[in-house]
Amino acid sequence: MSGADVKPADGRMVGTTHRFPLRVYFEDTDVAGIVYYANYLRFMERARSDMLRLLGIDQRAALESGEGVYAVAEASIRYRAPARLGDDLVIVTALDEIRAASVLIHQQVMRGGEILADAMVTAAFITSAGRPRRQPREWVAKFEGLKEDERA
Amino acid sequence: MSGADVKPADGRMVGTTHRFPLRVYFEDTDVAGIVYYANYLRFMERARSDMLRLLGIDQRAALESGEGVYAVAEASIRYRAPARLGDDLVIVTALDEIRAASVLIHQQVMRGGEILADAMVTAAFITSAGRPRRQPREWVAKFEGLKEDERA
Amino acid sequence: MSGADVKPADGRMVGTTHRFPLRVYFEDTDVAGIVYYANYLRFMERARSDMLRLLGIDQRAALESGEGVYAVAEASIRYRAPARLGDDLVIVTALDEIRAASVLIHQQVMRGGEILADAMVTAAFITSAGRPRRQPREWVAKFEGLKEDERA
Amino acid sequence: MSGADVKPADGRMVGTTHRFPLRVYFEDTDVAGIVYYANYLRFMERARSDMLRLLGIDQRAALESGEGVYAVAEASIRYRAPARLGDDLVIVTALDEIRAASVLIHQQVMRGGEILADAMVTAAFITSAGRPRRQPREWVAKFEGLKEDERA
Repeated sequence: MSGADVKPADGRMVGTTHRFPLRVYFEDTDVAGIVYYANYLRFMERARSDMLRLLGIDQRAALESGEGVYAVAEASIRYRAPARLGDDLVIVTALDEIRAASVLIHQQVMRGGEILADAMVTAAFITSAGRPRRQPREWVAKFEGLKEDERA
Repeated sequence: MSGADVKPADGRMVGTTHRFPLRVYFEDTDVAGIVYYANYLRFMERARSDMLRLLGIDQRAALESGEGVYAVAEASIRYRAPARLGDDLVIVTALDEIRAASVLIHQQVMRGGEILADAMVTAAFITSAGRPRRQPREWVAKFEGLKEDERA
Repeated sequence: MSGADVKPADGRMVGTTHRFPLRVYFEDTDVAGIVYYANYLRFMERARSDMLRLLGIDQRAALESGEGVYAVAEASIRYRAPARLGDDLVIVTALDEIRAASVLIHQQVMRGGEILADAMVTAAFITSAGRPRRQPREWVAKFEGLKEDERA
Repeated sequence: MSGADVKPADGRMVGTTHRFPLRVYFEDTDVAGIVYYANYLRFMERARSDMLRLLGIDQRAALESGEGVYAVAEASIRYRAPARLGDDLVIVTALDEIRAASVLIHQQVMRGGEILADAMVTAAFITSAGRPRRQPREWVAKFEGLKEDERA
């Protein structure tokens, strides 16, 4: 075989917004014929993790070194239309507010131009003991960089 | 072997509140050592389904006959403390408001006296085509019965 | 409220066989209307964990102390008939062979008298670095006790 | 925004072999720090579905029209080394044998040149009532085409 091998789907920053593609598989659906409601949260976490990866943030290293990990502190989601088997979706993610120990994130699950789900998620940085911790300074700088682009 | 066989955990109505027990298994946790955030929604759905079952509502029959099915239209959840492998949890569920085509439900994930997660969930009754539909009259009557007990 | 609170379903040893009950929820099904094939493995792991718990083995303590953890090294499963939403299942588990660093386990997913799935699972004890390790002596003694009952 | 939007990862046929890429997310891992054993079966199903898609087979249409759906009848998997958070994996899939109502499929989960899991899966075509059915003639022709390439 010649040429590059297959690679996992990468998201992409478009201005200050992160776009992450995925497809719906059998595992995501339920007997009602639609994507099971908890699975949209799995999709949104994949997108957030991909955005951090694109920003050069290594969550696994931070976890293994004991530095800390993000945990969702709050999530509000409106389900507007169901996704179905085989659908191509895009998760659109934007930082809404950057605080010392957490970020407020706006996420939408899109199918083409249609918003299927719309969510606000608060991700808090915590120690392995579960206590809130300030996010690493360099990470906040990267987040602020995104927000500044927005203002420009 | 003598005596009755093992049976799945049943929830129980305690006044107007439904209590549903479950235990945390490996499948529920993630590498951060805690229950993955989307899985609390799985736990809460089990509890809602069990409450309907106790009320004599057969979701599978309603689905197979084309009568309709519940889909979550909106969910807001606050994560207050993480659940961990082996924890015994109780999901506490109460109807907050009964509308024509949906119910607003308050759910808490408890470990002993501690609230681990607190959620408001709007479950909408929909047709197999995904359109809102009035809930069956008998179901609403059962729900109203619960609310009336509360007032008494 | 009077009386004891709700409790998660416990399995039970019946002779040398462990029986573990569970119910099928929406999360377990897929758009084909049946339980998604990977989810039977989730059910079987719940049963194995419950059997260990009944034997007085604390997997979380073993994991947190760095003693080790079970990982499946091999699994063979025959799917004979599908489980569906709302089904009451019993997972029947028996130790087939006890080795120094692993156990060979026979598991069946039953709905009443019908075998829905039949599996052989090899669970290997490993260190946190992923290397095989001898199972704790007391655990093996407990497993041997079960096998001896069988011979009696 | 200019240029094409993000797209989900597509697999690719390389000779008679299908290669499908994916990345490991938090949802895939468990408290032991590795991918939970049932989730490799989710990964392998994504790859099988993608191979069918590349062959021009529309599983959702077949399901909705009542033509039939694949269900796994048998799966044997050897877990050789664990995948971890953030790993880039490739699922390698090859048809081993084409029968009237089923296909025997060889699947490997690779991380670079390392085989993490090795599986044989029998996927049976069934009616919505769960009875075995001959696979559509055109699908078998497509599968045979792959096998003939192999012989050439």
